Amino acid sequence: MSKKIIIDCDPGHDDAMAIILAASSISNLQIEAITTVAGNVGVEKNTKNALRICDLVGLDDVPVAMGAARPLVREPFEAADIHGESGLDGTGLPEAPIKSLTEGHAVDVLIETLRSSEDGLKLVTIGPMTNIAMAIRKEPDISAKITEIVMMGGGTYGNRTAAAEFNMFADAEAAKIVFESGVPIAMFGLDLTHQALATPDKLKALQAIDNTVAETVVDMIKFYSSAYKGKFAGAALHDPCPIAYLIDPSICEFQQAVVDVETHGEFTYGMTVADFKGRTDRKPNVEFATWLDQDKFWQLFLDGLRTY
Amino acid sequence: MSKKIIIDCDPGHDDAMAIILAASSISNLQIEAITTVAGNVGVEKNTKNALRICDLVGLDDVPVAMGAARPLVREPFEAADIHGESGLDGTGLPEAPIKSLTEGHAVDVLIETLRSSEDGLKLVTIGPMTNIAMAIRKEPDISAKITEIVMMGGGTYGNRTAAAEFNMFADAEAAKIVFESGVPIAMFGLDLTHQALATPDKLKALQAIDNTVAETVVDMIKFYSSAYKGKFAGAALHDPCPIAYLIDPSICEFQQAVVDVETHGEFTYGMTVADFKGRTDRKPNVEFATWLDQDKFWQLFLDGLRTY
Amino acid sequence: MSKKIIIDCDPGHDDAMAIILAASSISNLQIEAITTVAGNVGVEKNTKNALRICDLVGLDDVPVAMGAARPLVREPFEAADIHGESGLDGTGLPEAPIKSLTEGHAVDVLIETLRSSEDGLKLVTIGPMTNIAMAIRKEPDISAKITEIVMMGGGTYGNRTAAAEFNMFADAEAAKIVFESGVPIAMFGLDLTHQALATPDKLKALQAIDNTVAETVVDMIKFYSSAYKGKFAGAALHDPCPIAYLIDPSICEFQQAVVDVETHGEFTYGMTVADFKGRTDRKPNVEFATWLDQDKFWQLFLDGLRTY
Amino acid sequence: MSKKIIIDCDPGHDDAMAIILAASSISNLQIEAITTVAGNVGVEKNTKNALRICDLVGLDDVPVAMGAARPLVREPFEAADIHGESGLDGTGLPEAPIKSLTEGHAVDVLIETLRSSEDGLKLVTIGPMTNIAMAIRKEPDISAKITEIVMMGGGTYGNRTAAAEFNMFADAEAAKIVFESGVPIAMFGLDLTHQALATPDKLKALQAIDNTVAETVVDMIKFYSSAYKGKFAGAALHDPCPIAYLIDPSICEFQQAVVDVETHGEFTYGMTVADFKGRTDRKPNVEFATWLDQDKFWQLFLDGLRTY
Repeated sequence: MSKKIIIDCDPGHDDAMAIILAASSISNLQIEAITTVAGNVGVEKNTKNALRICDLVGLDDVPVAMGAARPLVREPFEAADIHGESGLDGTGLPEAPIKSLTEGHAVDVLIETLRSSEDGLKLVTIGPMTNIAMAIRKEPDISAKITEIVMMGGGTYGNRTAAAEFNMFADAEAAKIVFESGVPIAMFGLDLTHQALATPDKLKALQAIDNTVAETVVDMIKFYSSAYKGKFAGAALHDPCPIAYLIDPSICEFQQAVVDVETHGEFTYGMTVADFKGRTDRKPNVEFATWLDQDKFWQLFLDGLRTY
Repeated sequence: MSKKIIIDCDPGHDDAMAIILAASSISNLQIEAITTVAGNVGVEKNTKNALRICDLVGLDDVPVAMGAARPLVREPFEAADIHGESGLDGTGLPEAPIKSLTEGHAVDVLIETLRSSEDGLKLVTIGPMTNIAMAIRKEPDISAKITEIVMMGGGTYGNRTAAAEFNMFADAEAAKIVFESGVPIAMFGLDLTHQALATPDKLKALQAIDNTVAETVVDMIKFYSSAYKGKFAGAALHDPCPIAYLIDPSICEFQQAVVDVETHGEFTYGMTVADFKGRTDRKPNVEFATWLDQDKFWQLFLDGLRTY
Repeated sequence: MSKKIIIDCDPGHDDAMAIILAASSISNLQIEAITTVAGNVGVEKNTKNALRICDLVGLDDVPVAMGAARPLVREPFEAADIHGESGLDGTGLPEAPIKSLTEGHAVDVLIETLRSSEDGLKLVTIGPMTNIAMAIRKEPDISAKITEIVMMGGGTYGNRTAAAEFNMFADAEAAKIVFESGVPIAMFGLDLTHQALATPDKLKALQAIDNTVAETVVDMIKFYSSAYKGKFAGAALHDPCPIAYLIDPSICEFQQAVVDVETHGEFTYGMTVADFKGRTDRKPNVEFATWLDQDKFWQLFLDGLRTY
Repeated sequence: MSKKIIIDCDPGHDDAMAIILAASSISNLQIEAITTVAGNVGVEKNTKNALRICDLVGLDDVPVAMGAARPLVREPFEAADIHGESGLDGTGLPEAPIKSLTEGHAVDVLIETLRSSEDGLKLVTIGPMTNIAMAIRKEPDISAKITEIVMMGGGTYGNRTAAAEFNMFADAEAAKIVFESGVPIAMFGLDLTHQALATPDKLKALQAIDNTVAETVVDMIKFYSSAYKGKFAGAALHDPCPIAYLIDPSICEFQQAVVDVETHGEFTYGMTVADFKGRTDRKPNVEFATWLDQDKFWQLFLDGLRTY
């Protein structure tokens, strides 16, 4: 039976690949909506990019709704240094999307889609969680309709600062609201996603796939790999990880943790503080992904691209 | 010409009196909507109280919309010690309101009322500013339609803590968002509202007015005066102050200030830090009310109650 | 009977005047030691200035010990904008003092002077409280020998920031340690010291006194008045206030308060948060000076200068 | 040539073992002084324990000086749950030490020992760093005489909280001062010391050594192992690690890092935030120990005990 999901995102190269991977697996995943948020670049660009990717992979019937233009409390913060001016530089995708934007704010589309779902939905968050936090605060009852938040973000170390990962750093107050919401969370932090590196051999395998979507993915990886030069063996495919897990939950292992989000630190703003040893007496709120079966992950990713 | 206003509130005895005062002056003030928020007590009780007051004063056509059930980021915090279990204890008002609640969340009613207003509106905030902050973050363009925020809250000292006034303390992150919004703010903090004390002679004057509304006001003041015993010469009519100012701007004097809201302090969470001396190089964002013409205020308040 | 005192200071024009005032009243005050700290300018300059003032007023037998070169935890911060490059610009005092520096660190001189005092001492602090905090932490037993800390600093508003006074802002962690020490504190904050303004008529009265010390005081006031231009009616004689109080306790009125020092705020670092209404259930730790008898103060100050 | 060291400690079982290990290697290490600080238990108990250990291993000529009775700024915090009421429960060591305490405060003994050292010293810190911070602030010039701080503390995760290790959590402000001092630091955090676990086979090897000191060590490990039950494969020999490194620098590997100490976080107070990737543009201030050669370490530790 296919899982119903909403993808809240800020494409961004790896967000784009996450959507592409999700769309390749319609027998497993049914995308009910895509909602966008300010993050990698501004929300209008991110939304335009989401539409471009929907066009590319033929997601014609999926509503795409634009959301928060800036974080809840903190000053806006972008990552154009990683993803280029457009947020999706380096691809030959046409600028003007054919698919049109859904009316209504992402926050309301989230609320309505959740409310109208009988058995609830899984919420995939691969950008800053401003929309999710606002939706939960506006209509607290929707928490009961989110069966799981499958999240790219956080980790025991950071990439924007030594302690904080980008999605958390970009809106730590929103993240705090989500982690304290009581909704079960499967968290794919940097500890996990840095196991999904697009090393030269993976890139070669991708290049061997002969279709437009795979070619676009190759272009994307090439573009944003430059940001990783000298630090890692290749670009990390952060956002595809939670999608891969939804398609095949056996690709990774988890450890339960109590995770808090730091919003007051001088050096730790946006850090996900994970307690694996029960030092607090609170119940774990997070399944923290610790190990990726890299072979399975790449098999799944390559197979997905071959469907196009 | 009458001023169009929205009242965002958490009744609460002094909120109730603010609505009563506003409703008494329909030639000056046109109430476009009343929105409610968690604060003095929970949002459902506050909303019920708003409806009870609308019934009392005949505000039959004013939409009343329920809003945020808890603050944006911080833990919920109430003031049932001041206002009693119902939030409006001590009055004989019927429990079940005749007037029915407007559909739609306060945040959306705020947004729509502002957008549909041609020349903009004045926003009267006399509770925690959770709804306002969410509306501004959801649809940033509405800021341009708020001609002025007329606010009860803050001060150079506090009442919930030594540094913070209740409305600010109850949601300092929301307050921060509002103060940083760029919308002009007329702020009626404790420095001003503690000049509006219902001393015994004022109470006597109120008791001389022979109508149900005035009697209810007397009941209210008597009830929540007990909280002030030994600290002040009478209960402070906090929330009626901004309404009185809207009816007659000459009742008080202002000083321009740069006001920031502290969200990180150990002893100062929720404090409104007011710089009157230009120590920062920023433009003043607040007209800070410093002096109340007490005679005019009470004249205006008593005259208002005599209209019922 | 004369009161034994230690003066911990960072001269600084008003520190200098405090020492001058203290030295003028040897029948009332017995200065056991002068200790210096980084503050208005660096500790070496402040120490040189303390020695220059001792020379000027003939405090030949009072040990002067140099102390902390920077605040305990926070980054160093000076006020050369107020007091000039030397910390005591504008006077004709000779650069090289005749009086020589006492051996030993101010922290140890504080400890030893207190320990060797039979009945304890009053500690006058008119700079950042780094030395005091270090002495208390190094030898906690000395607290019992400090009968009172008579302090210039803090207030319900600030002068370095909107919330924080200079001495507190310059080392808030040290201030926190002192306020939490359990030693009785008489606090002369800005609320009080801004009542001690050297207005033109006061300056005239000073100018009428015909001796070198008074002339130097006039030079000092003229120099650092420029920093007050447009904000106040004259330079505030901050640091002489606690000395004047020690000479004649009837010159001011106090209100008891629980005072905490904020060390975590974004806009309130170094603020003295004063609770006058018993909002916390802690015992008052501070006598907070609220009202200055200006006539008495100036009489006392002028009389003091006439003794030279 | 033997290295001159000062050991600043709070014994504590693993502190005791560190002293024992250091004393076993007099050809390599010359202990110039032992200074104590509040930490595992109160400073008086910790000092008594240091003296007991000196008695045990015959460190008759090493001065032992008592230091800070509580942390610099934060509230006192102990670890009697780990080390028992005395701080060294479970051993048969006589209560009353023969060796007597050195006069003078640890802070001054640190300062004088450093100043009188021609070529400087290595400072081994295996407790909260209150003494070190106070010494550096009191006499900043001594920094130049500390050739290296070899520290047990911190890590990329914590043991007292999820983020903070005990020594850092017990006085984060002191730690901040030390990390910002400019003195080269070799840091043995939990990442390293949790590689030095006294597993049953190691305990067995220790039990085979037939002398009083080794028997005492066995008693100690047995006692405080209980705190590790279920979490680790044995008690971690935290504090002996830096000593082992000083005896044989080849026992571990390091990675350079910029390390900051968090003093403001809600969940991260006392965390050592380590940047290994140059995300800040500051020069590394820490050699962060990452890998322990466990065979070499145990060989060295067992050999040490066999010398008694």
